Formats: sequence, structure tokens, C-alpha cells
Amino acid sequence: MNYPNNIKKDSHKINYSNRGMGLEQDLNETNNYYLQNNIAVIHKKPTPITIVKVDYKSRIDAVIKEAYFKTPSTTDYNGVYRGKYIDFEAKETKNKKFFPLVNIHNHQLKHLESVINSGGIAFLIIRFTSYNETYLVDADTFLKYIAKEKKTTVPLAFFKENGYVLKEKYNPRLDYLNIVDKIYLKGDEA
Amino acid sequence: MNYPNNIKKDSHKINYSNRGMGLEQDLNETNNYYLQNNIAVIHKKPTPITIVKVDYKSRIDAVIKEAYFKTPSTTDYNGVYRGKYIDFEAKETKNKKFFPLVNIHNHQLKHLESVINSGGIAFLIIRFTSYNETYLVDADTFLKYIAKEKKTTVPLAFFKENGYVLKEKYNPRLDYLNIVDKIYLKGDEA
Repeated sequence: MNYPNNIKKDSHKINYSNRGMGLEQDLNETNNYYLQNNIAVIHKKPTPITIVKVDYKSRIDAVIKEAYFKTPSTTDYNGVYRGKYIDFEAKETKNKKFFPLVNIHNHQLKHLESVINSGGIAFLIIRFTSYNETYLVDADTFLKYIAKEKKTTVPLAFFKENGYVLKEKYNPRLDYLNIVDKIYLKGDEA
Repeated sequence: MNYPNNIKKDSHKINYSNRGMGLEQDLNETNNYYLQNNIAVIHKKPTPITIVKVDYKSRIDAVIKEAYFKTPSTTDYNGVYRGKYIDFEAKETKNKKFFPLVNIHNHQLKHLESVINSGGIAFLIIRFTSYNETYLVDADTFLKYIAKEKKTTVPLAFFKENGYVLKEKYNPRLDYLNIVDKIYLKGDEA
């Protein structure tokens, strides 16, 4: 099941308009705000695929006719803020009590660990859509918790206790770098 | 012509084995060495595409049946080394005298500029395949040169004068972080 959640599970044309994309759309708009205002350069990585067949009807008109989704080897978001490397994964869950770990690949958890070991800033942004509550939680805290608990879910209570609430605003929509300043860059000159 | 150079321009199955991929393959092996040895976490980004049609034959077997290559909005490579954000574009040219700028999208040049402004380390790795010579050149030096010269090519002489030669070794194949240490991190404690 290595396909992104926002792609319909049938063969119809997909609506890639901006409505209803939830957390991903909020983060894209936030990152665009950061970029336009020279605050940070943070992008969502493209969906990794393996291309098997391409039709080149003309020089400018290549159509991919057969390709497969690959398991991502990294998180979805990374970039630079105040010279520091920023890396995070963002996920939504409809679950009211738990964040199911099946939503995150083992490769991605391993990647977050490698980023921490290389001195990068790593975290997760998790939204509980039933309450429209969004939490930023430090990746090291998260990884230590799941290594200790050895369960397939992380309770909402963990995020309430260890996470930072990301309030939605008009612009930037989800100002997570404000939290990054507080957690990781306290004492650094601006 | 927004398609990667390593994809054959017809409708046959593509050989994704490791042979003959040149600079990209050298960099992937180098980045893998850095990752395995806990030196740095640097990945090539997936090729950006727009997915239009997906067949879900079964729950685990999704096939993309129609997709298009998108113009990349960032460079291909980024990651973290010693806490610093690293960003670069890598290109080969068969040309013996010049690097043609048509190989790099304007979006990518603008991205390198944004990275520099956010305090990241940004450079280009350019290989002249006729001589098998590979140069690392600081992005700021490169951008200032092309802004001043206003030409569609950059002569090999520019790279000889301003770049750093990347010698091929056994492992890591193309040790560009050794050059990064010398240019950008001189004086930082290891």
C-alpha cells in the first residue's frame, strides 16, 4: 500500500485542486509564505516513483505510461532555516485516541534518527482531524517513546504532554518555525 | 523538455541498473557511503511528476497509468552535514569548452539563491564528460558570474579557475564533503 493517501483508489482523473487537502495544503501554504518572505526554504519532496514506461509523442510532450509508487526512504519535508537543517514528517489521523504508527514507514523513523545524529533539527507534525488539533513533537522524544513502549500506536495524551500545539492562523497558516525557535534555537541570535 | 536525461526517449522498458549512470550514480554511491558511515544524510530528491491516472488492481498493486514530468522547483540534492544544511545541483555535459546553462532551470538558480540567503551551504557539481573532469563550484560565485556575463554558457576555464576538482576514489567515490570542509567549514571544530 505504498500510495499516498490523497490519491483516489480508482482509475478516474484525480482532482489536484487545493481544496480539502488538509494538513499538506496548510504546510504548503505556510512554506510558500516562508519562502516569499525570505524566512526559510522548506519544500515537500516529490512522491518517489519508479518509472517503467514513457511515451515521447513529441520533444516537449513526454507521458509516463507505467510507473509504481516506491516506499519513501526519507521524510516528506526538509529545508533550511537560519542556516540550520530542518526535517520533518507530517501526518493526519482520523483516530480520536491514538496516532497509528502504521502511518509512518520504518525507513522514515530511521531517517529521522540519522538526521538527529548529523546535527539536524527533526520533528513530526501530527494532526488529529476529529478535533482539528495539530501538534509539533520533537523527533528524538517521539523515537525514544516508541522504542520504550513497543506499541503500534501513540496515544493523543503523549502529544498533549510532549507536543506543542500549532494554532491555525491566517498567514502563515501553521507557523511551526515559531515553535522551532522556542524548542531548538532558544538563545541563538536572530 | 522537462524530462530527466537518463530516461530513454522511446517507449521501451528502461534499464535502471547501476551501470553507465555517470555522475548521478557516483553521487548516489557517495551519499550512501556518507549515510552508512554516519557522516551525513544527503539524498537525491525524487523526480517531480504530476499524477493523473492510477489503476488500483489490488490493495498492494497500484500502477500509475498517466503522469507528466514537472519542472523542478528546487535542486536535486539536499541534506544535513555537521548540522549544516547542504544543497546542490549536479550536471554533466559532453561539451568540451562550455557548460550550457540550458541544463539548469531558472527555478533552480533562484532556489540556490534562496538557500544562500537562508544561511545554507549551496554549490554545483559539474562534470565535463569528455575529460571526465568534475568540479565543485560555490553557488554564490557561479550565480554572480552568470549575472555579470549574461551569456547562455559558462566556459570550462571558469570552473578551472573558481572550482575545486573532485577526484574519483574507490570509497567514497566522489568525496565532495572533503571540499565542503575546506571551503565552508574551515575553522569549525569537527
